[in-house]
Amino acid sequence: MSGETPAAVAAQSIRRLTIAVVDARSRRAANPDVSTLIENLADRLEAVARDPADCVGGMEPTLHEPLERSPVSGSMNPVAAPVRFETAADGSRRSTVTFGPQYQGPPRFLHGGVTALVLDVAMAGATVVAGHPGVTAEMTIHYRRPVPVREAVTIRGRHIRSEGRKSWAEGTIEVDGEVAVACEGLFIERRAK
Amino acid sequence: MSGETPAAVAAQSIRRLTIAVVDARSRRAANPDVSTLIENLADRLEAVARDPADCVGGMEPTLHEPLERSPVSGSMNPVAAPVRFETAADGSRRSTVTFGPQYQGPPRFLHGGVTALVLDVAMAGATVVAGHPGVTAEMTIHYRRPVPVREAVTIRGRHIRSEGRKSWAEGTIEVDGEVAVACEGLFIERRAK
Repeated sequence: MSGETPAAVAAQSIRRLTIAVVDARSRRAANPDVSTLIENLADRLEAVARDPADCVGGMEPTLHEPLERSPVSGSMNPVAAPVRFETAADGSRRSTVTFGPQYQGPPRFLHGGVTALVLDVAMAGATVVAGHPGVTAEMTIHYRRPVPVREAVTIRGRHIRSEGRKSWAEGTIEVDGEVAVACEGLFIERRAK
Repeated sequence: MSGETPAAVAAQSIRRLTIAVVDARSRRAANPDVSTLIENLADRLEAVARDPADCVGGMEPTLHEPLERSPVSGSMNPVAAPVRFETAADGSRRSTVTFGPQYQGPPRFLHGGVTALVLDVAMAGATVVAGHPGVTAEMTIHYRRPVPVREAVTIRGRHIRSEGRKSWAEGTIEVDGEVAVACEGLFIERRAK
């Protein structure tokens, strides 16, 4: 935990609490006392909320919010798994992650939409590494095999080529060394201001 | 709140707490006391966790986990917005939803991957209504305009046609009556057991 901000530590605690609610044997386990305690905590934190205008104000125009608030990789965002990508020597992006039950779609398997969510980030990251940061313009996902929750899986993103403001990238999710989901994406670089 | 299960009420409280952490002006706002209180709550709930095997055991084979645990629409899942779809007279699925800051990608806008996540559900729901429930085999998303957070947007899903075990569907996200994101999906019906 050393080096993590208080917000990141709190987010990690909220992830644990989230899993406990989703995984509770009974819908009555999270009794009204639990909710009251959580509401009290929310009251305290809401007292120091940022102004929504601050989300852009005073910042250099950047492509993304600080990554620590990202819904995929953000250490201080409790809805994020979080998925932490590393850059390989060839510039591709890679992450090994175990998704919890809060991301489950069909019994035992990752929700197909969550798959799309993390692949978008894997590909976008690879375009940034390649020097062509852009916004997603098009993405196609091919689901071959289900991806399990509660088991480590590997996510990869790779930049293919760029042409003017357009960049193409590919991504995969591998389970036990086999590609379970593959995707392609088209990213458009923003015009310089 | 009447009629909601304690788990759904707790999940709603956790959503509020999640937003408060993501939106806090300072990374120090969620101080260690806050984390300790959350960890104590998680301890209490983990004591009554279901066995992972229960996620399938004893249930009829169904396509999805009970919707209340869904990461998109689940009332008892704190990572879910939640997005609640209704079925229109023509069988299409529709939801009007305001995404909070925990789903933000670029400043002020919805993360492109979250867009994919909710469109998958909109299309899959339409195939269920049409009598052809299936798993997502392929999905293509076209991003035309950014989708704002903190503003109501409309999500739609529509079944197009079915042929054997294959079904095709379309989806959109509309902002101020204009299509900001469009998608197509191919869904495959599971073989009867």
